[in-house]
Amino acid sequence: MADFRLMSELAERNDNKISLLVMDGLGGLPLEPGGPTELEAARTPNLDRLAAEGTLGLSMPIGRGISPGSGPAHLALFGYDPLVYDIGRGVLEALGIGFDLRPDDVAARGNFCTLDANGLISDRRAGRIKSEAAAALVQRLKAISLPGVQVFVEPVKEHRFVLVLRPARGDSLGADLNDTDPQLVGHAPLPVRAQKPESERTAVLVSQWVAQAQEILKNEKPANGLTLRGFAKDPGLPQFSDIYKLRAAAIAIYPMYRGVAKLVGMDVLEPGQTLADEVARLREAWARYDFFFVHIKPTDSRGEDGDFAAKVKVIEEVDALIPGIMALGPAALVVTGDHATPAKLKSHSWHPVPTLLWSPNARPDGVASFGERTCRTGGLGIFQATDLMPLALGHALRLARYGA
Amino acid sequence: MADFRLMSELAERNDNKISLLVMDGLGGLPLEPGGPTELEAARTPNLDRLAAEGTLGLSMPIGRGISPGSGPAHLALFGYDPLVYDIGRGVLEALGIGFDLRPDDVAARGNFCTLDANGLISDRRAGRIKSEAAAALVQRLKAISLPGVQVFVEPVKEHRFVLVLRPARGDSLGADLNDTDPQLVGHAPLPVRAQKPESERTAVLVSQWVAQAQEILKNEKPANGLTLRGFAKDPGLPQFSDIYKLRAAAIAIYPMYRGVAKLVGMDVLEPGQTLADEVARLREAWARYDFFFVHIKPTDSRGEDGDFAAKVKVIEEVDALIPGIMALGPAALVVTGDHATPAKLKSHSWHPVPTLLWSPNARPDGVASFGERTCRTGGLGIFQATDLMPLALGHALRLARYGA
Repeated sequence: MADFRLMSELAERNDNKISLLVMDGLGGLPLEPGGPTELEAARTPNLDRLAAEGTLGLSMPIGRGISPGSGPAHLALFGYDPLVYDIGRGVLEALGIGFDLRPDDVAARGNFCTLDANGLISDRRAGRIKSEAAAALVQRLKAISLPGVQVFVEPVKEHRFVLVLRPARGDSLGADLNDTDPQLVGHAPLPVRAQKPESERTAVLVSQWVAQAQEILKNEKPANGLTLRGFAKDPGLPQFSDIYKLRAAAIAIYPMYRGVAKLVGMDVLEPGQTLADEVARLREAWARYDFFFVHIKPTDSRGEDGDFAAKVKVIEEVDALIPGIMALGPAALVVTGDHATPAKLKSHSWHPVPTLLWSPNARPDGVASFGERTCRTGGLGIFQATDLMPLALGHALRLARYGA
Repeated sequence: MADFRLMSELAERNDNKISLLVMDGLGGLPLEPGGPTELEAARTPNLDRLAAEGTLGLSMPIGRGISPGSGPAHLALFGYDPLVYDIGRGVLEALGIGFDLRPDDVAARGNFCTLDANGLISDRRAGRIKSEAAAALVQRLKAISLPGVQVFVEPVKEHRFVLVLRPARGDSLGADLNDTDPQLVGHAPLPVRAQKPESERTAVLVSQWVAQAQEILKNEKPANGLTLRGFAKDPGLPQFSDIYKLRAAAIAIYPMYRGVAKLVGMDVLEPGQTLADEVARLREAWARYDFFFVHIKPTDSRGEDGDFAAKVKVIEEVDALIPGIMALGPAALVVTGDHATPAKLKSHSWHPVPTLLWSPNARPDGVASFGERTCRTGGLGIFQATDLMPLALGHALRLARYGA
């Protein structure tokens, strides 16, 4: 990963701006051997020009063969080794719905489930109950209160919800609790137990909440039970501005990416509704920040849909935004993805991610288009995603020489 | 290396099969600059087709510039960092002759040597005494018995033999003993000393054995002495099935490869006599296992012989087996070597090893032949051999996503 001690020692403040444009799930696969990937199929004259002037490579989010979730994949792009810095499931889930998580909050991911007459789980997802029905149940669970803490329950999607306990100011709760989800049907939800002494009180509170929730749900069908997992707090990540000496802003429409950016200490800007809105926000904020994380979601969504042509179209829309970004005069512009989401697989994958690093100081590598195969022969080779921040800072002339 | 904790967390059981076809010593060198390597010279239409559909790279067994022995090289292919997991010389030697080593056995590699009138070593290998003569000496050494342990002595080749002490059931012996081989002529064999207290009794027993063996050999010529080295026990390696959630089978004709596979917990199948037999065994066992290690020895042997043309021919024979393997429907097929054995060098070498990873989920890299130079431009780049298992599991869709 980026060596944070070294980065904070070498990073220098100046007026050189860095933009990190993340097309979520950018990496792809050809539908047939010999065919193009989504990025190779897309008509991208602007990105191709940057590719000719810049340097290319393939980024590995975690390690070879490992498909990352979006949380770890973004941490890696920001230079944080996702195997070292772990954002708990509950926190990611809360961030994903835009919940304003505070440092002392304890968050868990909840699932509605179906219990049989003996209290054993017969369906871990309550038949993937519809979001509207689950939201109505969540509404009823909001009635539960606990002594000395604020309780928040919020619906996510289908059978999923988030539970958050917020202690009084100056008070603190541990989050080391086991999952109550046994991960198997035919078993009862597990009791909540503390795994460290400082989480004993949390365990008592959560047990009380579960008992009351169970009472409220008992005659529901199919969601007459629930499980909780991934109890976690804000992990207290080293802050972006301390490590890299950057005033950093995030422009992302989807809540989870805004949330991860917030955890590393970026200012989260109002993104608007469209890709064009995002670039407009970038322009407005340009003078006030040194680093801009701009997140583009639809590449991933269309990949997850398995819609090759639609993913190609999103990439072409992003290409059209490039002149507007270049007009702002970045000292370094990185265009990459957090991971691959090939339409062929309809899912995140382990394939390395095409990456373009444009800078007046880049060493061009003799290729003139942006695609998986050209990136394979590019000057950056295959590299760990956590090396991207040092590369961007270096190219933007924001790192001092190491040693005399 | 493969992160075993991460692997065991992410690995999933399903019906997707992985085949690892190892052509021992596959990597080669051109005889003249500009010429082809053995693999490049071979006519391999089947491997070339897989290369067009799959992804290529160059595998580094240990590190740049390091030529590996077969034991460490195979550990690396199985995902075990050979610099961390060490199979002692005595154990490798015992495995190499197919000795049925048990977990409590202490094994050492022995050399017959020549001692001068003062008891100093004048030839460390007793003039590379012929195998038949050494076997006759070993036969006489089998007469030696020791209190409380079973003793095995088995010939290897020329001046080499294996000594194994087996404690009674429930008893245990340490294996931390120094080598008695001083590695220099003009010195006497060293006394056996324990390096840890729990090996004191082993040192006493081995000293008794050496004294009696010396008595038996004293009038022999040229093998009137012996040295022992590499005292070791089964290292108790993490087991393949625990790490990767794979039912794994090994198909290898040579004992040492069967032995290394056994140490990592693979089932060792009867291989038959020929390459075609090996594929027949693969077919028979296909339904019962998830992972197949198939080992092909003659590529290495012909490389060691310095016979470029014969090594080319072996590769062509292996190519002809590929359709039979593909007909079984692997989710991932890896074709690689454990190390390079260029005919030009007549020896193992440090050169990275051509590797082909075929899978319906591979990202083709625009090359249509399997050779050292095409592998250099392949999508896997130059990678540590220990990354091969995560790559194979990922491509076979046997790894869950890391994080949300």
